[in-house]
Order: sequence, then C-alpha cells, then structure tokens
Amino acid sequence: MTRSPLAPAALPTLPDIAGVTRRVARARYKAWDRCDLTYVTLNEGTAVAGVLTQSKCPSPEVEWCRRALVLGKARALVVNAGNSNAFTGDRGRAAVEAIAARTAAHLGCAPSDVFVASTGVIGVPLPIHKAEAGLDAAFAAEPCSWEAAAETIMTTDTFAKVATTSAIVGGRQVELVGIVKGSGMIAPDMATMLGFVFTDAAVSPAFLQRALSAANTKTFSCITVDSDTSTSDTVLAFATGAAGNAELADEDDDGADAFVAALAELCMQLAHLVVRDGEGAQKLIAITVEGAESDRSAHVVAMSIANSPLVKTAVAGEDANWGRVVMAVGKAGEPAERDKLSIRFGTTQVAEHGLAVVGYDEAPVAAHLKGREVEIGVDLGLGDGRATVWTCDLTHGYISINADYRS
Amino acid sequence: MTRSPLAPAALPTLPDIAGVTRRVARARYKAWDRCDLTYVTLNEGTAVAGVLTQSKCPSPEVEWCRRALVLGKARALVVNAGNSNAFTGDRGRAAVEAIAARTAAHLGCAPSDVFVASTGVIGVPLPIHKAEAGLDAAFAAEPCSWEAAAETIMTTDTFAKVATTSAIVGGRQVELVGIVKGSGMIAPDMATMLGFVFTDAAVSPAFLQRALSAANTKTFSCITVDSDTSTSDTVLAFATGAAGNAELADEDDDGADAFVAALAELCMQLAHLVVRDGEGAQKLIAITVEGAESDRSAHVVAMSIANSPLVKTAVAGEDANWGRVVMAVGKAGEPAERDKLSIRFGTTQVAEHGLAVVGYDEAPVAAHLKGREVEIGVDLGLGDGRATVWTCDLTHGYISINADYRS
Repeated sequence: MTRSPLAPAALPTLPDIAGVTRRVARARYKAWDRCDLTYVTLNEGTAVAGVLTQSKCPSPEVEWCRRALVLGKARALVVNAGNSNAFTGDRGRAAVEAIAARTAAHLGCAPSDVFVASTGVIGVPLPIHKAEAGLDAAFAAEPCSWEAAAETIMTTDTFAKVATTSAIVGGRQVELVGIVKGSGMIAPDMATMLGFVFTDAAVSPAFLQRALSAANTKTFSCITVDSDTSTSDTVLAFATGAAGNAELADEDDDGADAFVAALAELCMQLAHLVVRDGEGAQKLIAITVEGAESDRSAHVVAMSIANSPLVKTAVAGEDANWGRVVMAVGKAGEPAERDKLSIRFGTTQVAEHGLAVVGYDEAPVAAHLKGREVEIGVDLGLGDGRATVWTCDLTHGYISINADYRS
Repeated sequence: MTRSPLAPAALPTLPDIAGVTRRVARARYKAWDRCDLTYVTLNEGTAVAGVLTQSKCPSPEVEWCRRALVLGKARALVVNAGNSNAFTGDRGRAAVEAIAARTAAHLGCAPSDVFVASTGVIGVPLPIHKAEAGLDAAFAAEPCSWEAAAETIMTTDTFAKVATTSAIVGGRQVELVGIVKGSGMIAPDMATMLGFVFTDAAVSPAFLQRALSAANTKTFSCITVDSDTSTSDTVLAFATGAAGNAELADEDDDGADAFVAALAELCMQLAHLVVRDGEGAQKLIAITVEGAESDRSAHVVAMSIANSPLVKTAVAGEDANWGRVVMAVGKAGEPAERDKLSIRFGTTQVAEHGLAVVGYDEAPVAAHLKGREVEIGVDLGLGDGRATVWTCDLTHGYISINADYRS
C-alpha cells in the first residue's frame, strides 16, 4: 500500500510512559508475515476510561470493554489486527473471554482488568488457538517501541499513527502518548476505529472518563472518511499514576484544566492522523460551519457536507463546484435559509446571500484546491452555532481498496 | 457517455396522451449541439399535482412550482437541461418568471399555469435571453415524440427513461406515460431529480396529489444513487381529462383503486430506471428489510445499507462481504439486535442469529453477485415492519464522472 500523501513527514519523538510496557507478536490472523497482536501491560492502580461505538451490532470486544469500564481499572490491553471478530456469536464471545482469561492468569489479575480490541474483517470468529499462541509469544517477547505497537494495530492504514502531549499537573510534568488506526469504515459515533491513549498522570477513572468524553466530542466525533460507522470503534485512555501527582478527581483540582486540554489536544492529533490516512485520501478537508442556530446544528450541517460523495469527488477533481456545498447544506435537514448562506473556499468568499459573489474570481480558489489541505467555510447567517469537522476526498483509491479488500 | 449496462434492452411502445403535446428546442444552455429545452402544452382543464425536494436550499423553479401547485391546474411545462438555476438569487427568480410570462403570453393563460423545472450545474443564473430564444424556437417547432422529450431533459443520463401503464376508470381506458431523468445527486427526499407523469384521465387536483404522494413514498423515496439530495428534485403529474371518464375525486370513486395502482406502478418503473442509470452503475441492488419494529424503521435501515459506500463498493467488487451489511444495520440508529439479525444475498441465507450460517457455502452467493441484479435481504427479527429500496453499486465510473463533471 502506497503511503498516504497526507502522512506527516516525520514521527514525533515519543516519551516513555512510566507504568506502560508494550510487546507485539505474530498471531497470523491473516496470511501475512507481520506482527498483528499487540500486548500492553499497565502497572497496578491504572485508571481506564473509554468511548465505544454506538453501533447496534457491536463486536463482543466492544461489549467486553463496556462492561469492564464500569470498574475503572486496567492491567493490560490486547489488540488483534486482521479480524474484527464482530458478528461471530458465541464463538466470538468465547475468543474474547479466552484472551482475557489467559492474560489474567499470566499477570495474576482479574479478567475484567484486561481490555481487548480487534479490527479487520467482520463475520469470521477470531481463532482462539491463534490468539492464545500469539499471546504466549507476546508474553515471552522483549518490550517494543510505541512505533512498533502503532504499526501492529494497522489494517489498511498506510502509516503508523502516534501523537504526544504533556501537561503540568500539581507541579509535576505528566506525559501523554496515543496510538490510533483507521482507515475505512470511519464515521465514529463516539470513537474512531481503534485508539489508545496512555498517560503517567494519576487520574480517577470518573474524571478520566469525563475528560475523554469531552475530548472525543470535539475530535474523533468530528471526523469522517466514508460515513460508515464501525462495529468496533473503541478509544481507551489509560492513566498509570506513575508521575506521582496528587490524583486528579475534580475539574477544580490543580492541573485539571491543563490535563483536560492536553488530552483533547492529543485526541485531535490522533483524529487528524486518521483522516490523513483515509482510504484513497489525496486531500485533507476541513469544513467549518458558522452562524448556525446551535453548535449541534452546525455539526450536523458540517457532517452533511463532509459525507457528501459529490462534495468529496469535486475536491478530488480540484473543481471549485461550490454548488455541491449548497446542496449538502440543503439536504442536512437543519435550519438554513438559502438567501442568508455564504460559502468560502480557503480565504476566498465564493457565494453570499444566496448567489455567487459579484465578480467572483475562481483563480485563487482553483489554486487553493490544488493543495493537499482544503478549507471549506459556510456561514448560515442565523446564529452563533459553530463546528469544524475533518474529512478527506473521495477518489479512485477508495474504490480500488474497497472493491477487493476482503479477497 | 457509455450507455449504462443496466439500461433496458428496448423502450416500451408509448401511447399518445390526448391533451398533451411535446416540443423541443436548442436553448444552448451549455456548449453542446443538442436540444436542451422541452416544452409541453396541456389542454385546458388539466389538473396537476407534484412532490418537490425537501432541501432547505431549493431552486427558484421548485419554489415556483410549490406556489403554482396550490391552484391545481396547468397549461404548460418547460424543462431546461444543463443549468439548474439553483442558488442564483434574484436573477434566478427573474429567469423563472420570464419563462412563465413568455409562455403564458403565447398560450393566453396565467403565468401560474406554467410549470418550470431546470437541471444541471448549481450556482449559474439561467441566461434569460437563451431561455427566451429557446422558447420561441419551441413555440415554432413541430410536435415531437415522448422519446425526444425524454432525451432532451437528460444531463449525465446515459439513456432516455420512459414508462407507461394504463387503467380502466369508470369504464374507460386511461393511459399514463412518464418521463424521468437522473442520474447523480439522487437521494430524493420527496421526489427524484426531475420526473413528469401525464395521463388523459380526469382527476381532481386534490385526488391526484394524494395518489402521487402515496406513489412517491413507495417509489422515488425508495431509491438512492449517492445519498445526495438535489436542490431541484421535482415530480409533477398532469391529468388532461381527455379520456372522458367521470372525474376521480375520491378514493371510493369507480376506478380510483385502478388509477392509484397504475400511477404507483408507473412511478416504480420510472424510479427503477433512474437507479439503472445511476452514475457509474454496473449493478442494480434491491435491499429488503423485514422484521423491523415498523415500516418506517425498516426503510431507515434499508437506506443505511443502500447509502453505505462500503456495501456499494463490495457489490461493485462482487465480494460477498456481508459483514458490511451488519455494519450498516448497526449504524442506522434504529432498533436492532445483533443476535436476532439474519442476512441473505439472493436466495442464500449467509448469516442468522448473529453469526454466519453453519456450513455457509459462498459459491451460490458469488454467482449471484456476478449478475447485473443483486438482492440483499435483512431480517431484523423484531416485528412486522418491512421496506424495499433500490440503489446501484459505487464504482470508478462514479468517481470519474463526478471529479470532473463541471469542468
């Protein structure tokens, strides 16, 4: 798979997170010679929070995590790539339970301390013997880098996705590192396909959950590649507490604001990386809707534009076809008045008050569309509601990848 | 443009509809040498009904028709191809008014008796001088066939779309003929892009409206090519009354059932033709959802499947990737229980009770997917709700057409 042209030129330098150890192994879930099982151990006392797909047909991994999250603590994370184990009935549930049991026995913890996520084809039960052999290999493996873990969770991704931020909490510097994967079936309802955030901060599970949910709303929930919401979307955040700060448990605690901001920034980096590796993506598109009746309404309109095949193919063709933006605003079902609507591409206003700008010069817009990053701005002219979402263009590459992905 | 492989082998023989006369002319809305203005005259006393886009950014033609429909009578229809005149402000409104005024002066009727529809690029005011010159040419032209009118309303369509039915009403045979165009920006909220139905039956405007709205719900509202709802969607039905039957005005009138059924059958034929000419379409996909909590819920789930890029690319690739159907059911937001769900391709059950059928043999499914017509069936196992929708696959052809349509 050719590396996405939107991939970052270089990976950031990633700090170690005290209390987190990564290992990878070959479970050979598909006929490939690459690591596809990621095993992360977490020190005792690690808090966990998560956001999971709203799909009515979730994978057993998602159901497992949803139950385990209630307890708020974690000792391990196991991620399988190449098989999502979704829609596999009792055999799928048995596979998740076997993974949790084997890991718990190895670590001497409760199965509910083990979080499991899987990604890949739907409908094929995860083979338990492969998972168990892979786990045994991972237990015996040397620890590995963040980058190796980020590579191991990939499926159709063309580059490993990592991000880092830090914050000062209670006088101590805390570090955050995240890894994430895409790249199709991306219209996360509460989370992206699979994302994992690690920090050495001491944070109560409840506070971590509030911070993650808030971050998710502004980041993972604001991206879309193809409008298709996965059965397996999962974002988990783990806080080991090894930084030694006084535990964050309340929004008023010293450093809480900084931590919340750092977590949101990290999630934003990760979400953007997913879009940059959208299947077939050649351009990153940021869509900002202002002047809506509410932020929620602005988000719905922005997503209507971001999911429009006609808008996305126009951008792919570097065609300043702003009429398709009008169409997508019109179909969103949210309050809008054609004659108050204005639209810009980049910094160039192309339409306002229900028609093209007088003397509109397409040249700067055409130049903007030739770039890798495209901005579309819409002002509905009704109120103060505002939202920004990110997507990518729709190209022949998306068709090629998805017309023969499974085969 | 290559003719769609899903096009019918031959056009049906179309009866004349007494009271309806068609003419076409070259307005040259684009730099092409073809007729692009259709002018249809209707005898005095013709009743009219219509369903129009629910877009919040409708074209001035849609607004014009919405107002004129209140009066329920029609003397003429003018259709412009190559320019939708949407999002063009006062100049767009002026163009519609000029067309209605010139036609009314020619016919000696009220401007509100003239219905206008336009299709093509958004955001460019319809040039009034071209419309007027085109109208004058049409006024002077010889009457033409249904086929010529159906060809003249085309844009990216690859074949002319016509259909016919008949019914016995009050002891008299009444004829119905419809013409329609697609083929992108097709996810009609109340209607498809442009469709026109003509009958010689005598029908009151109110009854015609009820019959058309009912037909629309089961036909045009059940198709989607790309989930993008046009600013210009319009279906109008004209009843000249020339058949001489006692006017239908009530569901209990003699022949009312037959007329309603014939109109619905005609709309179904037209709707299927639109999907068969979906941009880039190689396969026609019928999706039936049963066992939903309500018919409405079944329709939402079916549309979620029909609009999923991953389902549509899987069908394009002839890949029996039923996991993507599970995904699309799960994301629809309607009541669904994974472990009650069953799925078939053609007549082959592939999954039931939340997992693949035991001993599932992919061979008959693979054979079914190689055909031009693909059936996907979903049983939610919850209730009696049922719906069928139609779409086409998502192919490289769609990308090619839409990445450089305007240029």
